[in-house]
Amino acid sequence: MSVDRLIEAVARLKNPAVMGLDPRPSLVPPEIMGRHIDEKGETLEAAAGAFLEFNLGLLELAHGIIPAVKPQLACYEALGPAGMSALRDTLLRAREMGYYVIADAKRGDIGSTSKDYSAAYLGRVTIGSTRHEPFPADAMTVNPYLGSDNLNEFLEDCRLYDKMVFVLCKTSNKSSIELQELMAGDRPLYWVVAGQCERAGDALPGKNGYSSVGMVVGVTHPIQLRRLRERFPSAYFLVPGYGAQGGSADDAADAFDKYGRGALVNSSRGIIGAWQKRPETDWKDAARSAMEDMRDALRKAVPGGFV
Amino acid sequence: MSVDRLIEAVARLKNPAVMGLDPRPSLVPPEIMGRHIDEKGETLEAAAGAFLEFNLGLLELAHGIIPAVKPQLACYEALGPAGMSALRDTLLRAREMGYYVIADAKRGDIGSTSKDYSAAYLGRVTIGSTRHEPFPADAMTVNPYLGSDNLNEFLEDCRLYDKMVFVLCKTSNKSSIELQELMAGDRPLYWVVAGQCERAGDALPGKNGYSSVGMVVGVTHPIQLRRLRERFPSAYFLVPGYGAQGGSADDAADAFDKYGRGALVNSSRGIIGAWQKRPETDWKDAARSAMEDMRDALRKAVPGGFV
Repeated sequence: MSVDRLIEAVARLKNPAVMGLDPRPSLVPPEIMGRHIDEKGETLEAAAGAFLEFNLGLLELAHGIIPAVKPQLACYEALGPAGMSALRDTLLRAREMGYYVIADAKRGDIGSTSKDYSAAYLGRVTIGSTRHEPFPADAMTVNPYLGSDNLNEFLEDCRLYDKMVFVLCKTSNKSSIELQELMAGDRPLYWVVAGQCERAGDALPGKNGYSSVGMVVGVTHPIQLRRLRERFPSAYFLVPGYGAQGGSADDAADAFDKYGRGALVNSSRGIIGAWQKRPETDWKDAARSAMEDMRDALRKAVPGGFV
Repeated sequence: MSVDRLIEAVARLKNPAVMGLDPRPSLVPPEIMGRHIDEKGETLEAAAGAFLEFNLGLLELAHGIIPAVKPQLACYEALGPAGMSALRDTLLRAREMGYYVIADAKRGDIGSTSKDYSAAYLGRVTIGSTRHEPFPADAMTVNPYLGSDNLNEFLEDCRLYDKMVFVLCKTSNKSSIELQELMAGDRPLYWVVAGQCERAGDALPGKNGYSSVGMVVGVTHPIQLRRLRERFPSAYFLVPGYGAQGGSADDAADAFDKYGRGALVNSSRGIIGAWQKRPETDWKDAARSAMEDMRDALRKAVPGGFV
């Protein structure tokens, strides 16, 4: 089961971190961006080439330290078709290197359309009698607003191809309070979503007590995070909000069970933008230090040793 | 204001239809798909070439009949980077031909990420000092689950570049009941979303009484549609669910005000897949007839003459 591969990957490196590959023109070290612009002008293609080079460098640096990566699709879409090529090449290389790869897509639509989104990231797309994996990933994030006929299309590919989803439950941003914490009877909306995920997860159980239907739960809402952890023990959490968004390793620790299982903590800008805070340092050294610091902070804060 | 351009486009052709450009390998006429596969094999590139040729043909056929088009992004993402190139070329041609173009993206993320999605479809992406429009559209659909810091990023580009958004309110699928109709106090969730849209729309008012913050409201839920129309008179509706999903022109009529303004009715499979039901007919004739039939049905059912 996909979630068990994730748990094993975390245990192997004793690190529940996921590196957010969220490149933006201003986050790419100038020496990389500059070289691509010199070659191709101030084009989307130049930026996409720079994104890819930066990502490949980050994948090399994180190897053996961080078990999972999470490209944020918005960053690639912002560069048009060339950006999507850089995304695809990043995904292929990450898979080749053995990373657990989460496409941060936050897609959600009516069933017949979600089928296409799922095929693009988790499943297969058939042309004639040939099957393709357009953007191959191990897991993707899904938006729950359209309900179960949306979610079911992704779950079907999880079953067929041993993949995983993380459903947006309680997101890390401030205005997540507006809809997600609306009270429906005695429960906030995000709690209803969590219940749907739990039930869906019953059909995709792993061998470690977690299912392949995970949830996105921001570290920036520690009370909600603790409650969800307590009430939904089979849900693996994808936890954004660490670092640049304000969450600490101690806050994130509440997302884990007593064995140090049950959550991945994401850092994007904190790692890939580390060079901006240390302009005298090589960007690779800055990124590598940030990766090690995050790992060490999580090892210290999270109980159980990630067995 | 963007919504006024849309209203004028509808009035010019006396047709509130939007053609959903949702190509799928099985929906593309075999003579088109076959030619591209002969040339490039059973590749994603071949399918993308076929999608583009099909779309360009549909744009020619609909010209002077249908004022707006709505590419469904999932269909293009499913073909990888080549699909996104076909999307871009479709958007560019549709703009050139004067269509009002809605990117059916259903994106939504935390603010700093939605900024990238918005830049990709509504705004500008800056590389060095050069500004690009990666996937240029007049409007896009947005998912509300993450709240106003998400929505605000799109609204900012609406202001800057005179664009429009359609926020998912009550979608056309069956399971939209699960979250969207949860009661938060005395109001269902979709009603709360509608209220947020109305308030946001106050900052983007058009000259015809409608704002550039529209809502997606499925024709498959006629009671909810009527209530929303009555209570939110300044919201322009994007209405999916016509035709293949079961909605009729009479059902859709309730989305309009007494002047025949206030809504766009989408048909995808009903038009672009019309050839499948008439195998003896040229696909172009089948599509053209379906377009004219839909226009005529809407003209008959909707009051007011689209002035």
